[in-house]
Amino acid sequence: MRFRIRPVEASFYDLFTEMANHLVTGAGIVARVLDPEADKTALAAQMNDAEHAADDTTHAIIKLVNSTFITPFDREDIYALASGLDDVMDYMEEVVDSAALYGVTEFPDAFAAQVQVLQRASNLTAEAMPRLRTMKDLDEFWIEINRLENEGDRNHRRMLADLFDGNYKAMQVLKLKDIVEAVEAAIDALESVANTVEQIAVKES
Amino acid sequence: MRFRIRPVEASFYDLFTEMANHLVTGAGIVARVLDPEADKTALAAQMNDAEHAADDTTHAIIKLVNSTFITPFDREDIYALASGLDDVMDYMEEVVDSAALYGVTEFPDAFAAQVQVLQRASNLTAEAMPRLRTMKDLDEFWIEINRLENEGDRNHRRMLADLFDGNYKAMQVLKLKDIVEAVEAAIDALESVANTVEQIAVKES
Amino acid sequence: MRFRIRPVEASFYDLFTEMANHLVTGAGIVARVLDPEADKTALAAQMNDAEHAADDTTHAIIKLVNSTFITPFDREDIYALASGLDDVMDYMEEVVDSAALYGVTEFPDAFAAQVQVLQRASNLTAEAMPRLRTMKDLDEFWIEINRLENEGDRNHRRMLADLFDGNYKAMQVLKLKDIVEAVEAAIDALESVANTVEQIAVKES
Repeated sequence: MRFRIRPVEASFYDLFTEMANHLVTGAGIVARVLDPEADKTALAAQMNDAEHAADDTTHAIIKLVNSTFITPFDREDIYALASGLDDVMDYMEEVVDSAALYGVTEFPDAFAAQVQVLQRASNLTAEAMPRLRTMKDLDEFWIEINRLENEGDRNHRRMLADLFDGNYKAMQVLKLKDIVEAVEAAIDALESVANTVEQIAVKES
Repeated sequence: MRFRIRPVEASFYDLFTEMANHLVTGAGIVARVLDPEADKTALAAQMNDAEHAADDTTHAIIKLVNSTFITPFDREDIYALASGLDDVMDYMEEVVDSAALYGVTEFPDAFAAQVQVLQRASNLTAEAMPRLRTMKDLDEFWIEINRLENEGDRNHRRMLADLFDGNYKAMQVLKLKDIVEAVEAAIDALESVANTVEQIAVKES
Repeated sequence: MRFRIRPVEASFYDLFTEMANHLVTGAGIVARVLDPEADKTALAAQMNDAEHAADDTTHAIIKLVNSTFITPFDREDIYALASGLDDVMDYMEEVVDSAALYGVTEFPDAFAAQVQVLQRASNLTAEAMPRLRTMKDLDEFWIEINRLENEGDRNHRRMLADLFDGNYKAMQVLKLKDIVEAVEAAIDALESVANTVEQIAVKES
C-alpha cells in the first residue's frame, strides 16, 4: 500500500501535468536502456515504480471526476486523456521490461534517434498539459507531435529494414522487433493523446 | 439463415449478459485447444458457431437501440460496450482458428495459466453484466479485471522469453507467437470492456 | 508548401467523399505493388503524394468543424470519421513503403485476392460517403464492408499459414508478414469507418 499526500485543491490541470511528468520520467528510463553497462533489471524495477506512480495519478483523476459536479471539459474526454496517457506509460514499461527479459544489449542504429523522439514528445506533452487551462497555444503542440510521429515512423521503418537485412539471427530479430515496436507504440500513443487534446479544443472553441 | 426466438421484453441488461455468456462459452473452447488429443478442426467449427451466436446478440442490441426511445445509458456507450464484447470474441476465435490452421499441439509452459486468466476474466464479465442495472458493486469488477490483465501481461512476457530462448525453430516461434498474442489481445479487450463499464458508471454517478 | 483552391461552399459531405476518393487512389497504388516489374520507389513516392492530399482534406474537415456553428452530426463523430479514414491511408502507405523498403517482389498466393478486397471496400466507402447527406441506404454499406472484412480475414489467415509452412526463409517470412498485416490493418480500419458511419446513423435515427 502506497500513501501519498495530495493537496486538496489539486485540479484536473495539475493532475494531467503530473501524469505527463511521469511520462518524462519513463522516457528517461527508456533512454538509459541504451547504455550497454546499465543494469536492466534495476531499470525495470524503476520503471515499475514510475508506472505505479502514474496509476496513482490516473486513479486520482477518476476520483476527482466522480466527486466534481462541473468538470472543465466533458467527463468522457477527461477519461480518454487519462487513459491515453496511461497507455503511453504501459508501452514504455514494455520497452524496458522486454530489454531486461530478453537480455538485449545491442540495438539497431536508429534506436537512439527513436528514443530521442520519444523523449521530445514526452517533454512537449508535459509542457502542453498546463495550457489546457487556457486552451491557448495548443495548435503548435499537436502539429509538433504529429511531426515527431512522422519522424518516428521513418526511424521505425529504417530499423525494420536493418533488422531484416540478414545481419541478425532470427531470434535476435524477433527480440529487437518487439522492443522497437513497443517504442513505436509509445510514440503513436503520444500522438493519440495529442489528438484527444485537439478534439477537446475543437469542442471548446 | 438462422432463426431465433427472442422474448419481446429482452432488455439491454439481458442482451449484454447473453453476450458475455457467449464469451464464457468461447473461453471454454479456447481451453480445450490445450488438450493435445482435441480435434482442432471441430473446435474451430464450434468456435465459429459461438461467434455467430455472439453476432446475433450484437445485432439484437443494435436493433434495440434503434427502436428504443429512452435507453438506460448513452447510445454511444451501449454501442461501445457491444462492440467491445464482440472484439473479445473475435480474438478468441483467432486463437482457435490459428491453432487449427497451423496444426499446433504443444504450447509454452505458461499458456495453460494464461488461458485460465482468460476464463476467469470472461466469467467475471458475465457476472458483472446484470449489475449494470443497479450500477452497484461494479468497482470490484474492474479492479479484478485490471489485476487479471496485469497477471496476463506477466504470463505473456514469460511466454515470449520462453519462445525466444532458442528452444524452438523459427517457424514454430512465429506460429506460437501469433496464438499467444491473440490470447493476450482477448484479455486486453476484456480490460477495455471493463474500462467502458467504468466510464458508464462514472457518467451515471 | 502546397496550395489548393477549395470552393468556399465545400460541405462535410463533399470533404468526406473527397477523403474516401483518396483511399480509392491509395488502393490502386497498393494494387500496382503486385506487378513484379513495377518501380516500387516510384510507387512509394506516389503513395506519399496521395497521403499528403488526404492530410489536406483531413485538415479542411477539422477547419470546417471549427468554423461551423451547426454541424450536420456531432463534432466528435465528424472527428472520428475523418481520423478513421486517415488511418486507412496510413496503413496503405505502410504496405507500399514496406514493399519498397524490403525490396519484396513475390507475394503469397492469396495476396492478389486480398488487395481486391481492399479495393472493393475502398470503392464502397467512396460510394457511401455522399449518402451521409440523406442517411439512406447506409445499411447495405456496412453489411457489405463487414462481409468483405470477413473475407479479408480468411485470406489473411490463409496467407499466414502459407508463410509459416516452411517454404520461405525466416527473414522473408518476417518481411511478407509485415506487408500482409498492413493490408489486413487497412481493411480493418475500413470496417471501423463503416462502424462509425453506423453509429452516426444510429444517433440520427
